[in-house]
Amino acid sequence: MPEHTLKRFDEELEKLNATISEMGGLTESQLTQCLLALRTRDSEMAERVIAEDPRIDALDIAIQEQTVRLLALRQPMAVDLRVILSSIRISASLERIADYAKNTAKRALVLNTNGAPPAAVSGIDRLGRLVRGALGDVLDAFAHGDVAKAREVWERDEDIDQVYTGLFRELLTYMMEDPRTITACTHLMFMAKNIERAGDHVTNIAELVVFRSTGHGFDTVRPKGGSGSYTAEAVS
Amino acid sequence: MPEHTLKRFDEELEKLNATISEMGGLTESQLTQCLLALRTRDSEMAERVIAEDPRIDALDIAIQEQTVRLLALRQPMAVDLRVILSSIRISASLERIADYAKNTAKRALVLNTNGAPPAAVSGIDRLGRLVRGALGDVLDAFAHGDVAKAREVWERDEDIDQVYTGLFRELLTYMMEDPRTITACTHLMFMAKNIERAGDHVTNIAELVVFRSTGHGFDTVRPKGGSGSYTAEAVS
Repeated sequence: MPEHTLKRFDEELEKLNATISEMGGLTESQLTQCLLALRTRDSEMAERVIAEDPRIDALDIAIQEQTVRLLALRQPMAVDLRVILSSIRISASLERIADYAKNTAKRALVLNTNGAPPAAVSGIDRLGRLVRGALGDVLDAFAHGDVAKAREVWERDEDIDQVYTGLFRELLTYMMEDPRTITACTHLMFMAKNIERAGDHVTNIAELVVFRSTGHGFDTVRPKGGSGSYTAEAVS
Repeated sequence: MPEHTLKRFDEELEKLNATISEMGGLTESQLTQCLLALRTRDSEMAERVIAEDPRIDALDIAIQEQTVRLLALRQPMAVDLRVILSSIRISASLERIADYAKNTAKRALVLNTNGAPPAAVSGIDRLGRLVRGALGDVLDAFAHGDVAKAREVWERDEDIDQVYTGLFRELLTYMMEDPRTITACTHLMFMAKNIERAGDHVTNIAELVVFRSTGHGFDTVRPKGGSGSYTAEAVS
């Protein structure tokens, strides 16, 4: 194949990675801000997170289009193909995480006006900071193709689920002790669930980072992610 | 390109569509059974739904591999490329729907032993049957490339969200009237949320069916899906 096509392909591939990193950075900041909006009862910040979400959706679409261009440009070899296909899924997971951040921001708006048990709010914040930290690390692992770091993030999902479990039980007790907190606590429960699900997507991204470099990962058995947290609720 | 390669490509493409239809059928039956397990308090059926889930995950992986083979076989033209890329996303959405069915089955197991307000249980069943009906129709639309039917399913998401909203409010009142139902009702709330999210994925699939045939759809603005249902909770 002509030299210039190869060059063009590599440039497009670099651009794709840059777009994913940009999307990842924005998503991380959305997560940071929705937590801050809740903790500091800053409704304007929550509004900004909600208003920002379409930009991340647009990046997801841009990544779809870039992968199409790349695939159309030439028949990619095994490794390139893995990179391209995993990019589609990483992008989809980032889009979901940003969506959870947006939803959390919307609930923060409601809680800022209606009020919520402060202890529970800081529990959400603690959980959220764990997930945001994992997201930041998996984005580093992505940027540097750091398989070891990706695996380390992948394993962290269990701690996140444990914190989620404790928080969920805490919320149940608040509701039982004072039924007037039920509406607020259901919002906090869905916030906690959203953040825990965001953590599962961080785990997916970690698997995909490993898959990109090694060719294995899609079929890896996750840590007791979604269902693990479920079990928690079951016993609570 | 040699005749036999074209033939091989078309065969692989057919196989890919067949695998997606198989995965869709299994997912639909999982949704049917998890609802039945809840309605009839049939724990064995719930266990079967949980045990069946890995088969659907395996089909998702098989579809990933088939797309890789197809892309490696030749540089696909625009339409083929759309079909292949949308297949990856349809598969991912089906996998998620099946996951929600599994989670619903797990919660059904808990409720079968702990009990739950019968009216709320039939509310979940009503919501679930709406989503399962939409899934069945979108799978038909997929099988026949029926864009009109896909759009019709896409529009139905709003009704599903309205039923979800009503159910959510109903659950809140049960919890407030009798705090002893709080734990059961939180399970029912997450079941309702899972089913409503499954409905959002049915909507995604409808968009992808349209995208396959028309080249538009990824950037379509959804009906007030996820966030709409949120608004519901906000006012409840």
